[in-house]
Amino acid sequence: MIKNINVKTGSRIEFVNITSDLQKIVSESGVRNGVCHVYIPHTTAGVTINEGADPSVVEDIVSTLNKQVPHISGYLHAEGNSDAHIKTSLVGSSESIFIGGGKLLLGTWQAVFFCEFDGARNRTVMVKVMGD
Amino acid sequence: MIKNINVKTGSRIEFVNITSDLQKIVSESGVRNGVCHVYIPHTTAGVTINEGADPSVVEDIVSTLNKQVPHISGYLHAEGNSDAHIKTSLVGSSESIFIGGGKLLLGTWQAVFFCEFDGARNRTVMVKVMGD
Amino acid sequence: MIKNINVKTGSRIEFVNITSDLQKIVSESGVRNGVCHVYIPHTTAGVTINEGADPSVVEDIVSTLNKQVPHISGYLHAEGNSDAHIKTSLVGSSESIFIGGGKLLLGTWQAVFFCEFDGARNRTVMVKVMGD
Repeated sequence: MIKNINVKTGSRIEFVNITSDLQKIVSESGVRNGVCHVYIPHTTAGVTINEGADPSVVEDIVSTLNKQVPHISGYLHAEGNSDAHIKTSLVGSSESIFIGGGKLLLGTWQAVFFCEFDGARNRTVMVKVMGD
Repeated sequence: MIKNINVKTGSRIEFVNITSDLQKIVSESGVRNGVCHVYIPHTTAGVTINEGADPSVVEDIVSTLNKQVPHISGYLHAEGNSDAHIKTSLVGSSESIFIGGGKLLLGTWQAVFFCEFDGARNRTVMVKVMGD
Repeated sequence: MIKNINVKTGSRIEFVNITSDLQKIVSESGVRNGVCHVYIPHTTAGVTINEGADPSVVEDIVSTLNKQVPHISGYLHAEGNSDAHIKTSLVGSSESIFIGGGKLLLGTWQAVFFCEFDGARNRTVMVKVMGD
């Protein structure tokens, strides 16, 4: 079974912490041990796992991606969002997180972030919980 | 069961759309709901999911990767393909895509691309379809 | 069932080949065919698959990441390890490798590397073997 998380982003580039939404889906699934697969069905948004405690970490990731892949830079694709496509391929479209005792087995400082690169928009995160 | 897709690339750097090959394997597996794991068993080629409609998107990804990781740049590895190894680690070697109703549940604009970084060559994509 | 690999790194940035540890876990699991999921529960360390034969390949990956994401560069996060967080999101936190006949089905030149970006430290790699 696949569950969707709806994410409403407010800026062109924005990382949204979806950890509690994922944990809710895992809890409701009743699965105690398995894998939680997260998939982003967009080409200008991705997913990454990184520190959730200090928001400046995510700001540093965003500003470095913007420096490496500028918004405007003589791209061929005419929609003005080539940087968003490129950033998506750098962070990736899927993650797989282990489940133990009904909980996502994230590290102490880890959170799961939806990475908006071409907002603001209404977006979808697809989640599949598979038991052992 | 694992199925292989054979990809024959024609240039040093080239993204090949393998979406229809993947869908064919999913359809032939008979699996209605599950996960399609894609794995690239090479160290100078990877896999990414991005826009398949406008080919200029993929050209922008390639040209940006080439700018960030130049072909020649004082690398230690003596085979002249260090950039290809580095690009592979940036895009990654595996992806996991959901299956629902016998179809790959890709987003509207998404396609799966084999990323050749050191062609032209004959390459292999490994595919494993797992039902729920 | 989840197994942990303990990795003791000796430098700030260091790629550790964990392929034989993974193969040992796969062998002990008794699983002949399936998927081996690898997950890094840290926010300043990741995982990548690349060439294991010539150690200069990994050195080139490290030096290029250091050029793209310098250790010191006016970051907001005050702990002096923002570059390590950013590098982690670039290489990623998880990989999924196929198992056939009780063996990890890696390509000829592939090895799995734990990527330390903020060592030296004691680290953990989480491994989950799932049979077909």
